[in-house]
Amino acid sequence: MASDTPHPDPVRPADDAARVLARGVARDARFGALGVIDPATGGPMVTRVAALWDTGAAGPSALILVSDLSLHTAALGRNPACSLLLGEPRPKGDPLTHPRLTLMAQARPADKAALRAAWLATHPKAALYYDFADFRLLRLVPHSAYLNGGFGRAWRLAPADLARPV
Amino acid sequence: MASDTPHPDPVRPADDAARVLARGVARDARFGALGVIDPATGGPMVTRVAALWDTGAAGPSALILVSDLSLHTAALGRNPACSLLLGEPRPKGDPLTHPRLTLMAQARPADKAALRAAWLATHPKAALYYDFADFRLLRLVPHSAYLNGGFGRAWRLAPADLARPV
Repeated sequence: MASDTPHPDPVRPADDAARVLARGVARDARFGALGVIDPATGGPMVTRVAALWDTGAAGPSALILVSDLSLHTAALGRNPACSLLLGEPRPKGDPLTHPRLTLMAQARPADKAALRAAWLATHPKAALYYDFADFRLLRLVPHSAYLNGGFGRAWRLAPADLARPV
Repeated sequence: MASDTPHPDPVRPADDAARVLARGVARDARFGALGVIDPATGGPMVTRVAALWDTGAAGPSALILVSDLSLHTAALGRNPACSLLLGEPRPKGDPLTHPRLTLMAQARPADKAALRAAWLATHPKAALYYDFADFRLLRLVPHSAYLNGGFGRAWRLAPADLARPV
Protein backbone atom coordinates (compact mmCIF):
# COMPACT_ATOMS: atom_id res chain seq x y z
CA MET A 1 0.00 0.00 0.00
CA ALA A 2 2.97 2.31 -0.46
CA SER A 3 2.28 5.45 -2.42
CA ASP A 4 4.39 4.33 -5.38
CA THR A 5 2.17 1.32 -6.00
CA PRO A 6 -0.58 1.92 -8.57
CA HIS A 7 -4.12 1.47 -7.21
CA PRO A 8 -6.63 2.36 -9.92
CA ASP A 9 -9.38 0.80 -7.79
CA PRO A 10 -8.31 -0.76 -4.53
CA VAL A 11 -11.78 -2.20 -3.95
CA ARG A 12 -12.21 -5.39 -5.94
CA PRO A 13 -15.37 -6.94 -7.35
CA ALA A 14 -16.74 -9.87 -5.38
CA ASP A 15 -15.24 -13.32 -5.81
CA ASP A 16 -16.03 -16.60 -4.10
CA ALA A 17 -13.50 -16.04 -1.33
CA ALA A 18 -15.11 -12.69 -0.54
CA ARG A 19 -18.62 -14.17 -0.61
CA VAL A 20 -17.68 -16.92 1.84
CA LEU A 21 -15.92 -14.48 4.15
CA ALA A 22 -18.75 -11.94 4.05
CA ARG A 23 -21.43 -14.55 4.76
CA GLY A 24 -19.43 -15.84 7.69
CA VAL A 25 -18.99 -12.36 9.18
CA ALA A 26 -22.71 -11.65 8.78
CA ARG A 27 -23.81 -15.03 10.17
CA ASP A 28 -21.62 -14.74 13.27
CA ALA A 29 -22.58 -11.17 14.17
CA ARG A 30 -24.68 -10.63 17.28
CA PHE A 31 -24.43 -6.84 17.20
CA GLY A 32 -23.17 -4.10 14.98
CA ALA A 33 -22.55 -0.40 14.55
CA LEU A 34 -25.56 1.29 12.99
CA GLY A 35 -25.14 4.46 10.98
CA VAL A 36 -28.16 6.69 10.45
CA ILE A 37 -28.73 10.28 9.39
CA ASP A 38 -29.10 12.48 12.46
CA PRO A 39 -32.24 14.56 11.83
CA ALA A 40 -30.83 17.39 13.94
CA THR A 41 -27.81 17.97 11.70
CA GLY A 42 -28.13 15.88 8.55
CA GLY A 43 -24.81 14.28 9.47
CA PRO A 44 -24.14 10.64 10.31
CA MET A 45 -24.75 9.16 13.77
CA VAL A 46 -23.34 5.76 14.77
CA THR A 47 -24.72 3.68 17.63
CA ARG A 48 -24.50 0.07 18.77
CA VAL A 49 -27.39 -2.27 18.08
CA ALA A 50 -28.13 -5.93 18.59
CA ALA A 51 -28.36 -7.71 15.25
CA LEU A 52 -29.28 -11.01 13.66
CA TRP A 53 -28.47 -12.00 10.11
CA ASP A 54 -31.40 -13.46 8.21
CA THR A 55 -31.22 -15.32 4.91
CA GLY A 56 -34.89 -16.29 4.82
CA ALA A 57 -37.59 -15.46 2.32
CA ALA A 58 -37.04 -11.71 2.66
CA GLY A 59 -33.58 -12.07 1.17
CA PRO A 60 -30.24 -11.55 2.88
CA SER A 61 -30.75 -8.83 5.44
CA ALA A 62 -29.94 -7.83 9.00
CA LEU A 63 -32.56 -7.67 11.72
CA ILE A 64 -32.11 -5.16 14.53
CA LEU A 65 -34.18 -4.79 17.70
CA VAL A 66 -34.47 -1.15 18.70
CA SER A 67 -36.28 0.92 21.29
CA ASP A 68 -38.71 3.61 20.24
CA LEU A 69 -37.01 5.77 22.86
CA SER A 70 -33.64 5.67 21.12
CA LEU A 71 -32.17 8.32 18.87
CA HIS A 72 -31.47 5.86 16.04
CA THR A 73 -35.08 4.68 15.91
CA ALA A 74 -36.30 8.26 15.64
CA ALA A 75 -33.71 8.96 12.95
CA LEU A 76 -34.74 5.92 10.90
CA GLY A 77 -38.35 7.06 11.13
CA ARG A 78 -37.31 10.23 9.32
CA ASN A 79 -34.88 8.62 6.89
CA PRO A 80 -34.59 4.84 6.45
CA ALA A 81 -31.18 5.06 4.75
CA CYS A 82 -28.67 3.35 7.00
CA SER A 83 -25.46 1.38 7.22
CA LEU A 84 -24.50 -1.49 9.49
CA LEU A 85 -20.95 -2.55 10.30
CA LEU A 86 -20.70 -6.20 11.29
CA GLY A 87 -17.70 -8.20 12.46
CA GLU A 88 -16.19 -7.35 15.80
CA PRO A 89 -12.46 -7.64 16.40
CA ARG A 90 -11.03 -9.98 19.00
CA PRO A 91 -9.66 -8.45 22.19
CA LYS A 92 -6.06 -9.08 21.08
CA GLY A 93 -4.15 -8.17 17.96
CA ASP A 94 -4.62 -5.38 15.47
CA PRO A 95 -8.37 -4.71 15.13
CA LEU A 96 -7.88 -3.63 11.53
CA THR A 97 -6.74 -7.10 10.50
CA HIS A 98 -10.10 -8.62 11.47
CA PRO A 99 -12.63 -8.94 8.66
CA ARG A 100 -15.67 -6.68 8.77
CA LEU A 101 -18.63 -6.08 6.54
CA THR A 102 -20.34 -2.77 5.81
CA LEU A 103 -23.94 -2.96 4.63
CA MET A 104 -25.54 0.01 2.88
CA ALA A 105 -29.23 -0.53 3.47
CA GLN A 106 -32.76 0.70 3.88
CA ALA A 107 -34.65 -0.01 7.12
CA ARG A 108 -38.12 -1.53 6.92
CA PRO A 109 -40.50 -2.91 9.54
CA ALA A 110 -40.01 -6.61 10.29
CA ASP A 111 -42.52 -9.12 11.67
CA LYS A 112 -41.57 -9.06 15.32
CA ALA A 113 -43.92 -11.85 16.39
CA ALA A 114 -42.88 -14.23 13.61
CA LEU A 115 -39.18 -13.67 14.26
CA ARG A 116 -39.35 -13.93 18.06
CA ALA A 117 -37.96 -17.46 18.35
CA ALA A 118 -35.12 -16.77 15.93
CA TRP A 119 -34.16 -13.58 17.75
CA LEU A 120 -34.22 -15.12 21.20
CA ALA A 121 -32.21 -18.15 20.06
CA THR A 122 -29.30 -15.76 19.42
CA HIS A 123 -30.16 -13.13 22.04
CA PRO A 124 -31.61 -15.06 24.99
CA LYS A 125 -31.32 -12.11 27.38
CA ALA A 126 -33.63 -10.11 25.14
CA ALA A 127 -36.49 -12.24 26.48
CA LEU A 128 -36.68 -9.61 29.23
CA TYR A 129 -37.83 -6.88 26.84
CA TYR A 130 -38.52 -8.38 23.41
CA ASP A 131 -42.28 -8.17 23.89
CA PHE A 132 -42.33 -4.60 25.17
CA ALA A 133 -44.53 -2.47 22.94
CA ASP A 134 -41.84 0.18 22.58
CA PHE A 135 -39.31 -2.24 21.09
CA ARG A 136 -39.56 -2.87 17.40
CA LEU A 137 -37.79 -5.17 15.00
CA LEU A 138 -36.43 -3.60 11.83
CA ARG A 139 -35.07 -5.29 8.74
CA LEU A 140 -32.09 -3.62 7.12
CA VAL A 141 -32.23 -4.59 3.46
CA PRO A 142 -28.83 -4.04 1.86
CA HIS A 143 -28.52 -2.55 -1.59
CA SER A 144 -24.75 -2.92 -1.56
CA ALA A 145 -21.98 -4.03 0.75
CA TYR A 146 -18.30 -3.53 1.29
CA LEU A 147 -16.07 -6.20 2.79
CA ASN A 148 -12.75 -5.38 4.35
CA GLY A 149 -10.71 -8.51 4.98
CA GLY A 150 -7.75 -6.67 6.45
CA PHE A 151 -5.22 -4.24 5.04
CA GLY A 152 -5.25 -4.15 1.28
CA ARG A 153 -8.07 -6.64 0.91
CA ALA A 154 -11.39 -5.01 0.08
CA TRP A 155 -14.30 -6.04 -2.07
CA ARG A 156 -17.63 -4.60 -3.19
CA LEU A 157 -20.55 -6.98 -2.94
CA ALA A 158 -24.12 -7.02 -4.18
CA PRO A 159 -27.02 -8.46 -2.17
CA ALA A 160 -26.87 -11.70 -4.17
CA ASP A 161 -23.30 -12.23 -2.97
CA LEU A 162 -24.63 -12.35 0.59
CA ALA A 163 -27.28 -14.98 -0.07
CA ARG A 164 -26.74 -18.58 0.88
CA PRO A 165 -25.40 -20.71 -1.95
CA VAL A 166 -28.22 -22.59 -3.68
CA MET B 1 -38.35 0.66 29.78
CA ALA B 2 -41.83 -0.85 29.59
CA SER B 3 -44.28 0.99 27.40
CA ASP B 4 -46.41 2.11 30.33
CA THR B 5 -43.53 4.09 31.84
CA PRO B 6 -43.47 7.77 30.89
CA HIS B 7 -40.31 8.86 29.06
CA PRO B 8 -40.62 12.50 28.02
CA ASP B 9 -36.91 12.56 27.21
CA PRO B 10 -35.00 9.36 27.86
CA VAL B 11 -31.68 11.04 27.10
CA ARG B 12 -30.48 12.99 30.11
CA PRO B 13 -28.25 16.07 30.27
CA ALA B 14 -24.64 15.40 31.26
CA ASP B 15 -23.73 14.94 34.90
CA ASP B 16 -20.40 14.13 36.55
CA ALA B 17 -20.97 10.39 36.38
CA ALA B 18 -21.59 10.63 32.66
CA ARG B 19 -18.54 12.82 32.12
CA VAL B 20 -16.25 10.39 33.94
CA LEU B 21 -17.68 7.41 32.08
CA ALA B 22 -17.49 9.11 28.67
CA ARG B 23 -13.90 10.24 29.20
CA GLY B 24 -12.92 6.72 30.21
CA VAL B 25 -14.54 5.18 27.14
CA ALA B 26 -12.83 7.71 24.88
CA ARG B 27 -9.43 7.36 26.55
CA ASP B 28 -9.44 3.56 26.33
CA ALA B 29 -10.54 3.30 22.71
CA ARG B 30 -7.99 2.07 20.18
CA PHE B 31 -10.46 1.87 17.31
CA GLY B 32 -14.01 2.80 16.49
CA ALA B 33 -16.83 2.66 13.98
CA LEU B 34 -16.73 5.68 11.69
CA GLY B 35 -19.89 6.93 10.04
CA VAL B 36 -19.60 9.10 6.95
CA ILE B 37 -21.91 10.19 4.17
CA ASP B 38 -21.50 7.89 1.17
CA PRO B 39 -21.09 10.22 -1.82
CA ALA B 40 -22.62 7.59 -4.10
CA THR B 41 -25.98 7.56 -2.31
CA GLY B 42 -26.07 10.33 0.29
CA GLY B 43 -26.75 7.65 2.90
CA PRO B 44 -24.56 6.68 5.83
CA MET B 45 -21.59 4.33 5.54
CA VAL B 46 -19.94 2.78 8.60
CA THR B 47 -16.40 1.40 8.60
CA ARG B 48 -13.81 0.46 11.21
CA VAL B 49 -10.91 2.81 11.87
CA ALA B 50 -7.99 2.96 14.27
CA ALA B 51 -8.44 5.82 16.71
CA LEU B 52 -6.67 7.74 19.43
CA TRP B 53 -8.34 10.12 21.85
CA ASP B 54 -6.56 13.43 22.23
CA THR B 55 -7.19 16.03 24.92
CA GLY B 56 -4.36 18.33 23.92
CA ALA B 57 -4.39 21.93 22.77
CA ALA B 58 -6.82 21.22 19.93
CA GLY B 59 -9.52 20.32 22.43
CA PRO B 60 -11.08 16.94 23.10
CA SER B 61 -11.12 15.11 19.78
CA ALA B 62 -10.47 11.76 18.17
CA LEU B 63 -7.58 11.15 15.82
CA ILE B 64 -7.96 8.57 13.08
CA LEU B 65 -5.32 7.27 10.67
CA VAL B 66 -6.83 6.55 7.28
CA SER B 67 -5.66 5.50 3.84
CA ASP B 68 -6.27 7.74 0.84
CA LEU B 69 -7.35 4.54 -0.93
CA SER B 70 -10.27 3.91 1.41
CA LEU B 71 -13.89 4.75 0.79
CA HIS B 72 -14.27 6.65 4.06
CA THR B 73 -11.36 8.97 3.28
CA ALA B 74 -12.86 9.80 -0.10
CA ALA B 75 -16.24 10.38 1.55
CA LEU B 76 -14.78 12.72 4.17
CA GLY B 77 -13.09 14.67 1.40
CA ARG B 78 -16.53 15.40 -0.01
CA ASN B 79 -18.30 15.94 3.32
CA PRO B 80 -16.43 16.24 6.63
CA ALA B 81 -19.55 15.52 8.72
CA CYS B 82 -18.98 12.26 10.54
CA SER B 83 -19.70 10.22 13.63
CA LEU B 84 -17.46 7.91 15.63
CA LEU B 85 -18.66 5.16 17.95
CA LEU B 86 -16.13 4.33 20.65
CA GLY B 87 -16.22 1.65 23.34
CA GLU B 88 -16.02 -1.96 22.27
CA PRO B 89 -17.89 -4.65 24.14
CA ARG B 90 -16.08 -7.50 25.83
CA PRO B 91 -16.29 -10.93 24.21
CA LYS B 92 -18.71 -12.17 26.88
CA GLY B 93 -22.00 -10.84 28.16
CA ASP B 94 -24.64 -8.67 26.53
CA PRO B 95 -22.85 -6.17 24.25
CA LEU B 96 -25.60 -3.62 24.87
CA THR B 97 -24.76 -3.38 28.56
CA HIS B 98 -21.24 -2.09 27.78
CA PRO B 99 -20.86 1.68 27.73
CA ARG B 100 -20.25 3.34 24.38
CA LEU B 101 -19.84 6.89 23.20
CA THR B 102 -21.12 8.39 19.96
CA LEU B 103 -19.34 11.50 18.74
CA MET B 104 -20.97 13.76 16.17
CA ALA B 105 -18.04 15.53 14.58
CA GLN B 106 -16.34 17.29 11.71
CA ALA B 107 -13.16 15.87 10.25
CA ARG B 108 -10.15 18.15 9.82
CA PRO B 109 -6.53 17.53 8.84
CA ALA B 110 -4.25 16.74 11.78
CA ASP B 111 -0.49 17.23 12.07
CA LYS B 112 0.70 13.74 11.24
CA ALA B 113 4.38 14.38 11.94
CA ALA B 114 3.77 16.06 15.29
CA LEU B 115 1.44 13.30 16.47
CA ARG B 116 3.59 10.37 15.28
CA ALA B 117 4.97 9.40 18.69
CA ALA B 118 1.59 9.60 20.37
CA TRP B 119 -0.05 7.49 17.68
CA LEU B 120 2.65 4.81 17.71
CA ALA B 121 2.62 4.60 21.50
CA THR B 122 -0.95 3.29 21.27
CA HIS B 123 -0.71 1.65 17.83
CA PRO B 124 2.83 0.23 17.65
CA LYS B 125 2.07 -1.95 14.61
CA ALA B 126 1.21 1.17 12.64
CA ALA B 127 4.95 1.87 12.48
CA LEU B 128 4.86 -0.28 9.34
CA TYR B 129 2.76 2.22 7.40
CA TYR B 130 2.39 5.43 9.42
CA ASP B 131 4.85 7.30 7.24
CA PHE B 132 3.38 6.22 3.91
CA ALA B 133 2.37 9.25 1.90
CA ASP B 134 -1.09 7.84 1.24
CA PHE B 135 -1.96 7.58 4.92
CA ARG B 136 -3.25 10.69 6.57
CA LEU B 137 -4.18 11.61 10.11
CA LEU B 138 -7.53 13.28 10.62
CA ARG B 139 -8.91 14.98 13.70
CA LEU B 140 -12.59 14.42 14.40
CA VAL B 141 -13.73 17.46 16.35
CA PRO B 142 -17.00 16.69 18.14
CA HIS B 143 -19.80 19.22 18.28
CA SER B 144 -21.92 16.94 20.43
CA ALA B 145 -21.85 13.46 21.89
CA TYR B 146 -24.19 10.80 23.14
CA LEU B 147 -23.24 8.35 25.86
CA ASN B 148 -25.05 5.08 26.32
CA GLY B 149 -24.13 3.45 29.59
CA GLY B 150 -26.37 0.45 29.10
CA PHE B 151 -30.12 -0.01 28.90
CA GLY B 152 -32.00 3.01 30.13
CA ARG B 153 -28.91 5.08 30.81
CA ALA B 154 -28.24 7.67 28.14
CA TRP B 155 -26.85 11.17 28.24
CA ARG B 156 -26.19 14.02 25.85
CA LEU B 157 -22.78 15.63 26.21
CA ALA B 158 -21.13 18.76 24.92
CA PRO B 159 -17.45 18.96 23.94
CA ALA B 160 -16.58 20.55 27.28
CA ASP B 161 -17.94 17.46 29.04
CA LEU B 162 -15.25 15.42 27.28
CA ALA B 163 -12.33 17.62 28.29
CA ARG B 164 -10.03 16.66 31.13
CA PRO B 165 -11.00 18.18 34.45
CA VAL B 166 -8.95 21.29 35.17
